[in-house]
Parts: sequence; C-alpha cells; structure tokens
Amino acid sequence: MQIQELGEFALIERILRQLGPGNSSVVVGPGDDTAVMQVSPGAVLLATCDALVEGRHFLRAQITAEQIGRRLASVNLSDIAAMGGQPRWALASFALTDGLDTSFVEACVRGLAEQLREFGASVVGGNLTGGTELVLDLTLLGESAPECVLRRAGAIPGDAILVTGDLGAAAAGRMALAGGIPGPDAQACIARHLSPVPRVTAGMAIAASRLAHAMIDISDGFAQDLGHICDASRVGGLVELDRLPIGAATRATAAALGEDAATLALAGGEDYELICIAGADAEARLVDALGRAASVPLTRVGTIVAAGEGRWLKDSSGSSLPLEQTGWQHFGPLRRSR
Amino acid sequence: MQIQELGEFALIERILRQLGPGNSSVVVGPGDDTAVMQVSPGAVLLATCDALVEGRHFLRAQITAEQIGRRLASVNLSDIAAMGGQPRWALASFALTDGLDTSFVEACVRGLAEQLREFGASVVGGNLTGGTELVLDLTLLGESAPECVLRRAGAIPGDAILVTGDLGAAAAGRMALAGGIPGPDAQACIARHLSPVPRVTAGMAIAASRLAHAMIDISDGFAQDLGHICDASRVGGLVELDRLPIGAATRATAAALGEDAATLALAGGEDYELICIAGADAEARLVDALGRAASVPLTRVGTIVAAGEGRWLKDSSGSSLPLEQTGWQHFGPLRRSR
Repeated sequence: MQIQELGEFALIERILRQLGPGNSSVVVGPGDDTAVMQVSPGAVLLATCDALVEGRHFLRAQITAEQIGRRLASVNLSDIAAMGGQPRWALASFALTDGLDTSFVEACVRGLAEQLREFGASVVGGNLTGGTELVLDLTLLGESAPECVLRRAGAIPGDAILVTGDLGAAAAGRMALAGGIPGPDAQACIARHLSPVPRVTAGMAIAASRLAHAMIDISDGFAQDLGHICDASRVGGLVELDRLPIGAATRATAAALGEDAATLALAGGEDYELICIAGADAEARLVDALGRAASVPLTRVGTIVAAGEGRWLKDSSGSSLPLEQTGWQHFGPLRRSR
Repeated sequence: MQIQELGEFALIERILRQLGPGNSSVVVGPGDDTAVMQVSPGAVLLATCDALVEGRHFLRAQITAEQIGRRLASVNLSDIAAMGGQPRWALASFALTDGLDTSFVEACVRGLAEQLREFGASVVGGNLTGGTELVLDLTLLGESAPECVLRRAGAIPGDAILVTGDLGAAAAGRMALAGGIPGPDAQACIARHLSPVPRVTAGMAIAASRLAHAMIDISDGFAQDLGHICDASRVGGLVELDRLPIGAATRATAAALGEDAATLALAGGEDYELICIAGADAEARLVDALGRAASVPLTRVGTIVAAGEGRWLKDSSGSSLPLEQTGWQHFGPLRRSR
C-alpha cells in the first residue's frame, strides 16, 4: 500500500509497531509532543524534531531565509513548550540543493540561532548533506523537573479546556498570502503565519503552577489537537463556539477571503498556541499566573466530558455539531497544498 | 556564492559564525563528532545527527529497506562511539515521497530499531513529512561519564596513532557493487559497505580505560579524519603505509577493480572504524583491553608529531609523501557520485 492511501497517523501506528520496547529510562516514548527521558533523579530530558520542506512548508518567494530559520526554531520550541519544558540544545540537519546561495544558508542559520537564543536554547551540532530538495530538520532538546512534565494524557471529565492567545490568525495569514489580500489586517495575519511565537514562557509557567492536567500545542488545528488530548486521556470534550478567541484582524481577513473565521480557528492549524486542561477551580489562578509570567491571555473555551459523551461543538443557539477532526495530515485525503 | 563553489567545510565555518555562543551547559559545541552537554554533575549528554538521502547515499536497487535502516543507525552510533559514549535514545525524521510503499518504511524502521537495540539505544520520537526526495534523518543521543569523553583535540607529539579493525573494505565494496564485481571477496566487501558495524563497544572500552588522548570515527576516510584530529589537536602525524590494516578480501577486490588497496584504506571512507590516539606506552594495554572487551583488533599505524613537522605517509622504502586530505566532501570539487 502506498503511504498516501494510508494517511499520516495510520502510517505512524505501523511504524510504532516496528520499534519494540524502549529502554527503562524512557518515561514518554513516541506519540506525545516530545519524548521524555530520565537522565538523573531530579531531571528529565525532553526531545522533539520537526522539519520544513521547501514547496511544502514554505515557498522562498514568500518568506525570507531568516524567517524560515526562525520558523524552524519556533515549530520545535512549541513542542517543548507543550510539555512545559525549558528549551536547551538543538541539532540542525540540512539537505541543501546545488546552486543554493551560501547567503541563504547563513541567514537561515542566523534566524534559527536568534530565535532559539530568545528562549534559552542554542545550536550544539548538526549535519549537512546535498539533496535535490531543500529539507531543514531540527531536533530540539529541553529540560524539566520530572514532576512538572505535562502530557496529552491526564484530562478528566469536568476539567476546563483553556487556550492561550487567539486562534485562526496563522491560517488566515497563510490564505491571505496565497490570495494576495492587501491591507494591515491581512499583514498582521501573514506575520502570524510567517513568524509564529512559541508559547515557551507560558508553557513553563503553566507547568510550574502544577495546576494543569494535560497540555498540547496547536499545530494540526485546535479541533484535531484537542482530539489528540481526548484520545490520549480517553475523554470527550464540549467546546463553546462563541468562546473561541479570535482576533479582530483574523475576523476581518477571513471576511476578505470569504472564509468563516470560526472554521479557521477550529481547523486552520499552525497557531502554535497551547491547549491547557485544568480543574475547573484552577482557571482563575492559571489565568492570573499566565498574565503575570508571560502576559499571555488564557481563555476557557469548553469542558472535558466523559468519553461516552463524545466531542461536540455547541453554538450560541444551543445546538451541537460534531467537533470534526479536520486538521492537517501530511499524507492522505486531507492534505492541502502549501 | 553557490554552496558547491565553497565546499562543505568552508560552508560549515560560515554557519558556525552565525551561531553565537552556546549556553554554559555546552561542554563541546559544533565541530566534534558529537556535541557534549552537562546534564547533571556526574553525567554528560552526547548528541549527534546524520542523514541518508536516496540517490546520494544509497540506491534502492542496491540495498534493502532494512539495511538502509540499519545503516542509518550505524553511521550515528559510530559518532557516539567516537566519543566513547553509550548510545541511548534516537529521534527519526523522515521525508517520504508519495508513492512510497508502507512496507518500505516499516522495514526501514525495523532495521533501524534492531540495530539501535543491539547497542543499547531505542527510538523515542520522530517526525514524518512529505517530500520529492527520500531523506532519512536520525538524531542519536548518548550518555557518558564526564571524565571519559574523548574528543578530536588532545593528541600530543609522541602519541601512537591506533586504528580499530581494518580499512578500505567499505570503499572496495562500494566500487564492487557499482562495477558488478563477482565473487566471495567482493561480496564480503559489499557487506562491509552496506552493513557497517559501529565500534560502540570498542569506543566505550577505550574511553573506560582512560588511556586514550583523542578519538574520531572514520567516515570521510582515514587520512582526512586523522587530519581532523591533527587540526583539533594542533599536531602533525606520520603514518607508516605498511602498517595500515587491510584485509585479504579488500586487497583481492581492489586488484579486481584495478585500484590500489592502500589508497582505498587511506581515502575510501565509510569504514566506521575508530582512530584512537594514546601515549606510546599505553599501546599494549589498549590492545589488550580492546581484545577482551570487544574482540576488536587495534593496530598502531603511526605516530603523532609536532605540527611543524607536518603530516606524512612513509612507505617501506623510507620515502615520504604528503598525507593528502583526499576524503569525501559533500559539496565542492571532491564530491563523488554515489
């Protein structure tokens, strides 16, 4: 069977079956935002990797080399943030095409190093190879206290579903860039698409508060990433449409695009915000902690329910729709060109 | 300037200038076989990455998916071995082409996981993306006691230059495979090319002995990798041609190819043996330790000299030739097609 018939998540399932058991030091193996390994009694190591492929994740006509490097850092920083960790060390592995200008590579590495440094991490090693396609791969390592690590599993019925920042701006920006939408609202969204800000400080503040039960970052899309939490925690969820935090620029750009802003917020992806699940009584303390530590808003958008109650989106009229998992998959029918 | 005009090592130099300083936990940054980071007072973390690109590092007509996976593990295991470390955790990042069969990916991962497990490591995470070219990237993490880590720097004049196993077999195998050379000698060399065995146990035994001053694994080629040690240690070297360990199958295959076996041993590359530099009086104890721990032969092939004395290859007649750095560079004039 060809991989695109199977789809990304089914392929990952098949791959995981080939791996066999990890060694005893592996606290969290494949299937969460980062792997977690015990390196000493008081510290765990977090490790994640993500790649940007030209023509698929970026077009050089639309983004500068420095922005590409920053973005490569950010998508990985976001995964460390999702576990509540402190980013520390990165390894960059690049497949470079013949004819590529050295200034491109230098600017890309400069952006990468600057964005990592902003969050306390540095490039410690890497690898270069030639290729027919530009592939920029980064592995990022982080540290955490063992008791502070947050996973996808851990949500329980009655918990609040909280989200940092706002949703849908990156997707609106991606579409505005492709469609040539002008104006300051579109520009603001395009900046969110090209230069996402990973919620590293917020993630560490949430983890340090010990108030959260589960966490994930939004890369595939809010609905799909909440689905990953529901899968791992074996729970359901009820999301209130009117509570989704959507910025004015996102609404204006969605309107200019003829798109529904709420759909972009639910399924657009690449927001790199955090979905945080916490006890309903912890909401106010978390909002306060996050405002102080990271100046990031935290909005309650719904409630965790029992698995049997399903996953629903409730609108203002009180009617409910299935919270479809409509986010991004790399292989298979849902793949979009970008 | 285009990257192929600059060459791999000059490009790496330019990249390193973009990185800025690492944080204080970085013991060894970019430029050695692995990065080394302090994670607790008694332990350091080793981290390396290396990629295999279809059409450049392998041809699917010549190697099975399982062998590709094993090879991906081995080239990274060899870098951890070069520092004397224990391999522990790996992250696999694959760019997969549409139309690729899932069975290929499964077999590749199975080979990767098996080879890692053989040396005490396991896959803890990874990433999949689509691409127009098959790129298989692995990051491997290892552990060591801080006092046991061996680097490229540390060789001093008077030291013995020692090498594990034998040289040139992988290069002979690569050429035999391309040239369709038949027979058991060629087959033995082809197996060394397709399925190199990383010297993990030997590397750890050498490190634990505390007798060595510097170490590197041979990927670019003996002469070039010894040159990396000379560069980092600011020393020269004198290699005795007749002492180079070259197996009978390698000599026979080189003859069938019309190639000089010593040239393959010096510059062929991909041997994944270790060059170990140690005090001249330590040679016998190291040979003994390695024979017991890893059943791997260790051969003295030369002597470290002062930097001003240069880098020379001495033949049996007593005449000396420059120990040219003729190994593999990914970009630039020395690039070979394979």
